[in-house]
Amino acid sequence: MIRRLTVIGVGLIGGSLARALRAAGQVEEIIGCGRSEAHLERALALRVIDGYATSPEKAVAGADMVVVCTPVSVIGEMGRLLLPALEPHAVVTDAGSVKRQVVEQARTAFGERMEQFVPGHPIAGTEHSGVEASFATLYRDRQVILTPTAETRADAVARVTLMWEATGATVKQMTPEHHDRVLAATSHMPHVLAYTLVDTLASGDGAEDVFSCSGGGFADYTRIASSDPGMWTDIMRANRQEIMLALDGYIAHLAELRKALGKEDDERVHATFARARQARERFLTDRPGEEAGEKD
Amino acid sequence: MIRRLTVIGVGLIGGSLARALRAAGQVEEIIGCGRSEAHLERALALRVIDGYATSPEKAVAGADMVVVCTPVSVIGEMGRLLLPALEPHAVVTDAGSVKRQVVEQARTAFGERMEQFVPGHPIAGTEHSGVEASFATLYRDRQVILTPTAETRADAVARVTLMWEATGATVKQMTPEHHDRVLAATSHMPHVLAYTLVDTLASGDGAEDVFSCSGGGFADYTRIASSDPGMWTDIMRANRQEIMLALDGYIAHLAELRKALGKEDDERVHATFARARQARERFLTDRPGEEAGEKD
Repeated sequence: MIRRLTVIGVGLIGGSLARALRAAGQVEEIIGCGRSEAHLERALALRVIDGYATSPEKAVAGADMVVVCTPVSVIGEMGRLLLPALEPHAVVTDAGSVKRQVVEQARTAFGERMEQFVPGHPIAGTEHSGVEASFATLYRDRQVILTPTAETRADAVARVTLMWEATGATVKQMTPEHHDRVLAATSHMPHVLAYTLVDTLASGDGAEDVFSCSGGGFADYTRIASSDPGMWTDIMRANRQEIMLALDGYIAHLAELRKALGKEDDERVHATFARARQARERFLTDRPGEEAGEKD
Repeated sequence: MIRRLTVIGVGLIGGSLARALRAAGQVEEIIGCGRSEAHLERALALRVIDGYATSPEKAVAGADMVVVCTPVSVIGEMGRLLLPALEPHAVVTDAGSVKRQVVEQARTAFGERMEQFVPGHPIAGTEHSGVEASFATLYRDRQVILTPTAETRADAVARVTLMWEATGATVKQMTPEHHDRVLAATSHMPHVLAYTLVDTLASGDGAEDVFSCSGGGFADYTRIASSDPGMWTDIMRANRQEIMLALDGYIAHLAELRKALGKEDDERVHATFARARQARERFLTDRPGEEAGEKD
């Protein structure tokens, strides 16, 4: 049970966590923190939070759990700002999509109090943002990855694990490096691919006509291209090397397939398609209600 | 009102058309045709069809509307097989994802009876196949593209238009060439990209671990990679030139973005992402229930 939870950045991710913990009866009081008072007032009106402060220092006073849900580039800075008021028994975790850079910046920010910081990443979200888009079941059946450092206290990891499990998520641990490599492949690179596809088609001739002939498969395939461009540029910056490596591998594979098409090597084309379908069916299970995709 | 509809290839596409027309009260009798008797028996048991024949010639006798829903590579062959029994007043249309090759093969198959053939393509589907996956609302609010040729009779086009409109679809006309260019961009190429992505990740180290850390965004993005590999190899073959052109344009754009990332030209990265989001929001409207995408 969390007595006082402080959520820094009350948007889709932080708002959904607050709602989920409230729905599970796992939190007594929720304090929001952000730059915009108007935004925090909306979160208050929606009863996502019970109170707020615009200063991280004020917001974390008396909190036993602090979750930083800001863009990755300012997580370290938040640590620096909140530290003076952080209770000795409190735990700080984050929800950043990149972990190596967050750990580095947290080390600078927290110094010898790094033991109170548990780097984390809930693999969940939608292409929408803001507290209005938040909902209590966002994390149900989702994965949350924690990347505790050598300094992180074991009981802090345990408390963050319990918190995420209360939202219906499964928690696993890995190193920040491994996290960043894997997420570059499954999330960061696919965003680059989807943004680039939509931009390629939009910049060509007759874009309106092209998009009007697209079906549900295209809508699904490009949904992530509706995500916040600023947040995603931030992620590119924070995980640049891994994303570039993943992109290089993908571009090489794509060039091979293009070559096979050009040589009319349709056996190779078919083998690629068949391996992909098999892999997708072996490894991925679509959740109910997520099967509206189209093959056009 | 269609008196007798013959559906050649009673799978997702043909089965859904049959169900939709039945639900709309727009057809009196539906005859299925396919190679597998067991499959046709299932369609009969599901009351998708009222009777069947395994020979196209037998199946079309007495039909006033014939819809060929086979893989694109055999649509021409079906025309040749069914022609001897085709009623003079009957209309034949197809549901192939490629139109130029279908028109060429239909010309050879139908000869001077080409006036009875209306090339068509409903832009709808799911990654599933088979009559069990068919449902009556598949075409609701979807686009159907007809690419009538110079020979095609105007009243034949009108009858096929009415048929698709009865399923809830919107019908538009364009040339086969334009259709193939547009669909290469919005459907055929995205399938190549999704298959290649899944295959790239599956062939790397620790594939299971990689996929287990993926979220709903990845599931959405790769859903089309669960489509039938044989059918899609067929489409690659039938629309090879346009798909290669589209791929070349995409690869060039992707290489530019990769270069921008390498040069830390994050303004350019952001501009690409922002243009893409804007284009997607201007041109695409997600249907209700299709907004479960994740940005992880």
